[in-house]
Amino acid sequence: MSQPLRLGIAGLGTVGTGVVKIVRQKAALLTERSGRSIEISAVSARTRDKDRGVNLSSYAWEDDPVALATRDDVDVFVELMGGSDGPAKAAVEAALKAGKDVVTANKAMLAHHGQALAALAEDNGAVLRFEAAVAGGIPVIKALTEGLAGNDIERVMGVMNGTCNYILTRMEDGGLTYEEAFAEADALGFLEADPQLDVGGIDAGHKLSLLSSIAFGTQVNFDAVELEGIGSVTIEDIRQAADMGFRIKLLGVARMTGRGLEQSMAPCLVPANSPLGQLQGGTNMVVIEGDQVGQIVMRGAGAGEGPTASAVMGDVMDVARGLRVSTFGRPADSLTEATPARASTPAPYYLRMTLADKPGALAKVATALGEAGVSINRMRQYNHTDDSAPVLIVTHKTTRNALDQALVAMEATGVVITAPVALRIEEV
Amino acid sequence: MSQPLRLGIAGLGTVGTGVVKIVRQKAALLTERSGRSIEISAVSARTRDKDRGVNLSSYAWEDDPVALATRDDVDVFVELMGGSDGPAKAAVEAALKAGKDVVTANKAMLAHHGQALAALAEDNGAVLRFEAAVAGGIPVIKALTEGLAGNDIERVMGVMNGTCNYILTRMEDGGLTYEEAFAEADALGFLEADPQLDVGGIDAGHKLSLLSSIAFGTQVNFDAVELEGIGSVTIEDIRQAADMGFRIKLLGVARMTGRGLEQSMAPCLVPANSPLGQLQGGTNMVVIEGDQVGQIVMRGAGAGEGPTASAVMGDVMDVARGLRVSTFGRPADSLTEATPARASTPAPYYLRMTLADKPGALAKVATALGEAGVSINRMRQYNHTDDSAPVLIVTHKTTRNALDQALVAMEATGVVITAPVALRIEEV
Repeated sequence: MSQPLRLGIAGLGTVGTGVVKIVRQKAALLTERSGRSIEISAVSARTRDKDRGVNLSSYAWEDDPVALATRDDVDVFVELMGGSDGPAKAAVEAALKAGKDVVTANKAMLAHHGQALAALAEDNGAVLRFEAAVAGGIPVIKALTEGLAGNDIERVMGVMNGTCNYILTRMEDGGLTYEEAFAEADALGFLEADPQLDVGGIDAGHKLSLLSSIAFGTQVNFDAVELEGIGSVTIEDIRQAADMGFRIKLLGVARMTGRGLEQSMAPCLVPANSPLGQLQGGTNMVVIEGDQVGQIVMRGAGAGEGPTASAVMGDVMDVARGLRVSTFGRPADSLTEATPARASTPAPYYLRMTLADKPGALAKVATALGEAGVSINRMRQYNHTDDSAPVLIVTHKTTRNALDQALVAMEATGVVITAPVALRIEEV
Repeated sequence: MSQPLRLGIAGLGTVGTGVVKIVRQKAALLTERSGRSIEISAVSARTRDKDRGVNLSSYAWEDDPVALATRDDVDVFVELMGGSDGPAKAAVEAALKAGKDVVTANKAMLAHHGQALAALAEDNGAVLRFEAAVAGGIPVIKALTEGLAGNDIERVMGVMNGTCNYILTRMEDGGLTYEEAFAEADALGFLEADPQLDVGGIDAGHKLSLLSSIAFGTQVNFDAVELEGIGSVTIEDIRQAADMGFRIKLLGVARMTGRGLEQSMAPCLVPANSPLGQLQGGTNMVVIEGDQVGQIVMRGAGAGEGPTASAVMGDVMDVARGLRVSTFGRPADSLTEATPARASTPAPYYLRMTLADKPGALAKVATALGEAGVSINRMRQYNHTDDSAPVLIVTHKTTRNALDQALVAMEATGVVITAPVALRIEEV
């Protein structure tokens, strides 16, 4: 039997207390599986005197997470505080500099500082693991980094923000407007303090940037993720999409092209009968496509105490078993700086706009599309009112660049009353 | 840079040549990811002079896989010959005794000899890995053994024989009889030399027994898997199930109960709109339920050169990176001998039978069910012919034991013309 593995846990919210509970309740199981006893030496949180439903009295307490991270009796620093900078980053850096392994659920920190932290870990012979940062309990980081390591990855996709998927599902199932569904999610406590993290696609974008790095061997580049939130999606879009056999999801897509690395997080139409289209409520899904394996789909809870603590413990158990894999699957200094590319791989698009009710308006729009080289698959004018006409167009495959040319030309016709909503139809 | 990792590959069918191709074509990528160069020292197959579409001239050739397995220039023995005993087992044993790590895709060998081979590996400080043995390219062994190592596993389910799923899908989509769909699968080369391995559920049962061992920490016990093939499923069953919102799948289910370990591989009804119900054609799916993580669903190609070679390479890369995990996730001597339990966790059942067209026949059947404590949810008599009446019954939740009592009593009434088909409705 090897030495015990001693944890220092910073952050005792739902995930942190979930981890403490697993370590306490499953001690024998964890030892049997890893060959070592998993122990907690010390913990840290903002507030000490708070009933967290778990007995912390046998662990040392540190007010300062940096002090916790560098304690002699801590082998693995478990960072569950959150926040891209500040104490979380300071403590992780301190732990790595002290040669301690780090397990974190902090997607924002890694999206912004992943490259530097991965390099710091390697310089100090430490490992930095983050299964819980992406898609909650789904062991997708492990699958991509290890299980599929014999593949060139071609595309990674994911629905990775349960709150957005909840809102979109409620709009479809419950006939709610975006504002009503948003209010419902808020009342249920599903939204981050800054809701833009959810509905603006930022949180999901953080996650996509981490998957991209592993998939394509590139430095994490969150700033290059094209972000588009779900705020512009209307119930009419959802109905029209459903009518054509699609569902609208906040979908992250990353692929390496001859032009560079595409990373987009935006509402997209996906076939209603595909695994992504079938996804309901707060569940997450990640789709990985490799040149050897074809398409792998993984689905599970994207948040919550149990699922996230499960992912943290998976990383802890890997450390206990002696697994030493580079943070993003290869040495930090071999990660390339990919050229960011506009997500312009040809795809069909869904367009919705309102036109002035004038003779020839539709023809002008169709001409603008045609002159930009965008051909129309179907077009529908509906719910005609006195002076404006909502119009829906589905294009054949086109690049986003050509589509944008067409959108500019359409605006110039003077017949477009409300700016077009353009959603990509992703082949999945 | 560490020493190269040198492979000896025995078996050069589609999977073996797929592995050779990956090692040759992705040398730089594999080295970058694992920190070591992955090389092939020697190969072995039944026939030497055969064009396999890949250049083998730079590798030593061994006619005898045992000689290959024990070569000084082989670090990892990759066993892709197949067969539960014979040369595959002899070579794997020889490799392990020589302290060499082993990667295999051989489910039959592990289902029958997994316990002994795991112990042999540990006694010699070697690792034995088998991702490719279960569900093709889906990294499910890794997910269950490592990613979800912080969970008590509650249930594992899987559709893990693509041929059976193909046959059932063609019966539903194409309106084919079982015999027609079987012939089609045969013509496409989907069937094993002994078709019972596929349609009898044996191949899928092998896989389930391996998942059970990891999930529940028990010795592999394939003989305790309740096997029921798909040969008794008729197109009428598929239509009736569809009519009620279900699809029929050859579904493996393993769960630990107070009575012991249930392992069954049998045609079951699952909701048509569930991930398992949505599964079409040859695709595989594994569902893992843990006390922390909830339900994780993994889907992908269950067979074929690329997917299976991908799984083999995942294991090879793990070995290259120094991962040393016990074969079934904990030391072989800590795996318990679980009491095999009949799969009798209460579930609703679908029953189809043909009754004599006599007054009171239906009442006699209903009475037999009632006296065994089985209550009826719905009952339907259809397609009435001159002298017999097909009857379909869906029960409320009942144990299999109670149902079997009822089936015996029904037979005794003398009104049952064809023995009832009984399929479990699995809640997923």
